[in-house]
Amino acid sequence: MPTFSHCIVATDGAARAGVLHTAHGDVDTPAFMPVGTAGTVKAMTADAVRATGSGIVLGNTYHLMLRPGAERIARLGGLHRFMDWPGPILTDSGGFQVMSLAKLRKLNADGVTFQSHLDGSTHRLTPARSVEIQHLLDATITMALDECTPFPATPEQAQTSMQLSMRWAQRSREAFIPRPGYALFGIAQGSIYPNLREQSARALTSIGFDGYAIGGLAIGEGQATTLAVLDATMPHLPADAPRYLMGVGTPDDIIGAVQRGIDMFDCVIPTRAGRTARAYTARGIFNLRNARFADDQLPLDPDCACPACTRHSRAYLHHLFKAEEMLGPILLTWHNLSYYQALMRGLRSAITERRLDTFASVVRAGWAQEEPT
Amino acid sequence: MPTFSHCIVATDGAARAGVLHTAHGDVDTPAFMPVGTAGTVKAMTADAVRATGSGIVLGNTYHLMLRPGAERIARLGGLHRFMDWPGPILTDSGGFQVMSLAKLRKLNADGVTFQSHLDGSTHRLTPARSVEIQHLLDATITMALDECTPFPATPEQAQTSMQLSMRWAQRSREAFIPRPGYALFGIAQGSIYPNLREQSARALTSIGFDGYAIGGLAIGEGQATTLAVLDATMPHLPADAPRYLMGVGTPDDIIGAVQRGIDMFDCVIPTRAGRTARAYTARGIFNLRNARFADDQLPLDPDCACPACTRHSRAYLHHLFKAEEMLGPILLTWHNLSYYQALMRGLRSAITERRLDTFASVVRAGWAQEEPT
Repeated sequence: MPTFSHCIVATDGAARAGVLHTAHGDVDTPAFMPVGTAGTVKAMTADAVRATGSGIVLGNTYHLMLRPGAERIARLGGLHRFMDWPGPILTDSGGFQVMSLAKLRKLNADGVTFQSHLDGSTHRLTPARSVEIQHLLDATITMALDECTPFPATPEQAQTSMQLSMRWAQRSREAFIPRPGYALFGIAQGSIYPNLREQSARALTSIGFDGYAIGGLAIGEGQATTLAVLDATMPHLPADAPRYLMGVGTPDDIIGAVQRGIDMFDCVIPTRAGRTARAYTARGIFNLRNARFADDQLPLDPDCACPACTRHSRAYLHHLFKAEEMLGPILLTWHNLSYYQALMRGLRSAITERRLDTFASVVRAGWAQEEPT
Repeated sequence: MPTFSHCIVATDGAARAGVLHTAHGDVDTPAFMPVGTAGTVKAMTADAVRATGSGIVLGNTYHLMLRPGAERIARLGGLHRFMDWPGPILTDSGGFQVMSLAKLRKLNADGVTFQSHLDGSTHRLTPARSVEIQHLLDATITMALDECTPFPATPEQAQTSMQLSMRWAQRSREAFIPRPGYALFGIAQGSIYPNLREQSARALTSIGFDGYAIGGLAIGEGQATTLAVLDATMPHLPADAPRYLMGVGTPDDIIGAVQRGIDMFDCVIPTRAGRTARAYTARGIFNLRNARFADDQLPLDPDCACPACTRHSRAYLHHLFKAEEMLGPILLTWHNLSYYQALMRGLRSAITERRLDTFASVVRAGWAQEEPT
């Protein structure tokens, strides 16, 4: 069984291309992780997710602990087997969704008690329990429990919240049972304040993790601020360890973050957009519900190798969404994930060939040719 | 381009195994046609439908003429290209769904005027227009326009309705533009009355079609009556031409009809059941919503080669339906179509090896082992 490690094979400015070695196989970085909330990337078979070029997926601890339950998944052989994904899986800590979805939350220094949004049943999540659940799920990468500081927050609120997350990071580290090829990532917080971000990065580094996530971003602060926070945080993280920007983002966000040295991303944008007729393409975003596509014989994106683009016309995709056929979300989710993964491949090649800034300019110029939607 | 033909390669009693040669490829018979209502077999990519072993699919003229429109599909290169199904496609005439779905229907001797259930727009369907629409769709097999006699009907009602359908069959024949490898099927009516069924079969035979359908069944008369009508009809149809029992049915219905010499079937049962958590298996019907599956590590049907059965547990399928994840309908539709096509393969082999009755008994005994649901 391999040791969990991140080998950086090329750099271009602050950007890095590498390989994540894990117990469940290798992943090329920078990597985009499709979100498989409840043990399925919505509208996709596992084979279809693999066909998009995805090498690692994310599972949501909050959803899985409530249904079907972490102990049940463990009895059934773990999340990999449950969802037919033998490759690497990263699970979040559950903390973010407790705050966004659960009812009657009570937070104290030790953890959070909440009621399920499904049936009102009471549950408690502590750093140790979150890590235990992720162990039961057999997550390749476990995330430390943190509090995602809401935006906006005053410096005082942000500091108090970040310090709580750092204590929980320590407890998560203590609770984590190491196994070869498995990893625990800490999560930096600190809202938009550079000094807090630096403190948080240093605190995590001193605890010591296998990878470092940057949390509490892409929650309303705007792209310029997101990227400024990265600039303030990255210098204080270990150089070689993988860096994961949580919940980000649009293709444009991802390019900006890769240019700043981020290695891993997850976001619901490509899957959610796919279910609502929005397609990410080399020429910008298309809304397939638009009547102008009714007679459009062209492929959605002629450069894309997915079945939506190689087998069908825009007119067919338009028809599927008008007729509310399930195949619309299926094909467009497939396309959007294919587009995201093609972007990640392009970024990796560009870094390896030291032409990242040119690549970014060319890609952005393509989006600017967007046809009106 | 091959001539449309049906080569019977083996018989066992009244049952026949054969090959349908068409402009869009060959189809082994007896054949089950998945229903692709609006240009898509619901919840399935075309590749997935092919993977189930399906060789021919059905399209619904009523739905397609209203949305996206027959002329539009013709401009886009026909239904095969539109839905990524280069293989044979049979389209119905639209008549059945005009009567079941449309509003403000007015039927006269020449056709039917109706309002779309989608937007209230007025449309007219005559034998000539139905055949023209199916030509525009590029249907491999065109169905003559008929009136599906409602059940129950008095002998007088059934006779009047059947005679109308026979006049429309003649007009459909006159409107059909022959092309090599394409076919026009007539549809026998006559409700449950053997003498009317015989008259209808003789009338169609005297007009002359490439295949003969038996319509107006599986609409409430019960399986015993359905099969009795087949017994009354089949002797009066040409021996070699393909025979298609419309809208049938359950696996048990199909076995009974194959034993009586039917070659083709279509039905929404496997796809609709798949979307509502009902699985057809060698051990009967399973309702995957049932709580007894929550911890069931077994494959749904160990004999089935579909991804639902080879990649996942019953517990996972149960979870997907509880969580209302789209992958539940996707996987269970895939499974049910795979089960139906495996049944058809089994029937074809059994006919070829002259052991159809034994095969039927063994299959039915398997269903009787059904676990409680």
